[in-house]
Amino acid sequence: MAEQRLPVPRLRGVTREQFMEHLYPQRKPLVLEGLDLGSCTSKWTVDYLSQVGGTKEVKIHVAAVAQMDFISKNFVYRTLPFNKLVQRAAEETHKEFFISQDERYYLRSLGEDPRKVMDNFLIQVTGKKRITLFNPRDAQYLYLSGSKSEVLNIDSPDLDKYPLFPKARRYECSLEAGDVLFIPALWFHNVVSEEFGVGVNVFWKHLPSECYDTTDTYGNKDPVAASRAMQILDRALKTLAELPEEYRDFYARQMVLRIQDKAYSKNSE
Amino acid sequence: MAEQRLPVPRLRGVTREQFMEHLYPQRKPLVLEGLDLGSCTSKWTVDYLSQVGGTKEVKIHVAAVAQMDFISKNFVYRTLPFNKLVQRAAEETHKEFFISQDERYYLRSLGEDPRKVMDNFLIQVTGKKRITLFNPRDAQYLYLSGSKSEVLNIDSPDLDKYPLFPKARRYECSLEAGDVLFIPALWFHNVVSEEFGVGVNVFWKHLPSECYDTTDTYGNKDPVAASRAMQILDRALKTLAELPEEYRDFYARQMVLRIQDKAYSKNSE
Repeated sequence: MAEQRLPVPRLRGVTREQFMEHLYPQRKPLVLEGLDLGSCTSKWTVDYLSQVGGTKEVKIHVAAVAQMDFISKNFVYRTLPFNKLVQRAAEETHKEFFISQDERYYLRSLGEDPRKVMDNFLIQVTGKKRITLFNPRDAQYLYLSGSKSEVLNIDSPDLDKYPLFPKARRYECSLEAGDVLFIPALWFHNVVSEEFGVGVNVFWKHLPSECYDTTDTYGNKDPVAASRAMQILDRALKTLAELPEEYRDFYARQMVLRIQDKAYSKNSE
Repeated sequence: MAEQRLPVPRLRGVTREQFMEHLYPQRKPLVLEGLDLGSCTSKWTVDYLSQVGGTKEVKIHVAAVAQMDFISKNFVYRTLPFNKLVQRAAEETHKEFFISQDERYYLRSLGEDPRKVMDNFLIQVTGKKRITLFNPRDAQYLYLSGSKSEVLNIDSPDLDKYPLFPKARRYECSLEAGDVLFIPALWFHNVVSEEFGVGVNVFWKHLPSECYDTTDTYGNKDPVAASRAMQILDRALKTLAELPEEYRDFYARQMVLRIQDKAYSKNSE
């Protein structure tokens, strides 16, 4: 099967009302152009950020490669004053460095992982990013480890290890300063920064508040009902494990048919 | 995908020890030829059966067509003396009949359905049958209604209604007087009688006795652990139903991946 690449739609001049009424309910990614983001898009230069950010020490991710890997953790944590970080991150080659002359830096102000269960606006204030999104329907092709895909090099994946990956539909967009990307809850995203830049993420709860785990600082945990359903399923599987293999296999397949019948969305997306 | 038709292996002169040690553990259908079934294969003629069976009234299935359908129930129940039944069943065209001149009769001495969860020897004493078996692994292509396939006309199925049916592998055999077919538990079977005949089924429990439902007269019920697992799954699905469609769909797919990982047989059969 050939890879399917789909452009994320771009819309200019969308009002809040249009978004809320017509676009948000579709639960599909979308790039909003030309929103009034104030002066940050022109003002937040390297010099300005170095100056106003000051010397407060910040903990950063440092990696020898552009693609940081939050599963194998191919990065180290280091500390730098904020103004130094900004200067270094904007350089191509570093005179001062931790691991290599062309090491990459990443400062995340809160949490380790992109939030998965909340809706998200990714506001590209400065710089450029290339973003690939994956439909949650295609999770089965993404080789998840927890909530993250093991496939990091999405442009040239290891097909021996990840043979089904090309079946996942890719939704692609490039963000430039001023663009705002709507990422609905559950959509997977893979980000490559093409130059130094600042992005601001705004997350919000889409479900009623009681659906979320109250201990979930980073918005990554599954909704309460989903974790509970998964725990109950584990009990069902433990019961099934009492049977010999051929029966277990047979009834496991019956369980799958039941789930597909009762809980899969009927609209075929 | 082309239909896959596989012959059921036929073996002659297999001893009890060979069967128990080498064949039975493979859990695959098998025709045993040349077993010593005593004199019944030659003795149980129409005349003999009419004579020794006497006039005891028996309840029979009567249908206008050869393929009786236990889902839509395209047959009626009627009562005949045993000797009358045997004579009528052996005729091509009936002078006396209930619904039509070429109606078909079926006498089942116990229960409505073929047993599903027990192992089974189908002993063809007289007459000919054409039998098609389906691997339980292919249950997903059989459009089950309860434990029975909705696809009755397996030689010319309605592909608009049952598009996946051709994916089910067909294991085929013809039984003649004296042949014994081993049908492992969970294998689906479709039987066409090609002439008047008598078959004797011997069922036995393959799993330890406590695995079976004690109220299961006909051996059709799922093993206790399987029914329990299914009930627990239903609770999980009820919990999941608290979430909106897109989340429910997403987590339902995660549940399926979990089942496939934990409970599907690893040998790819």
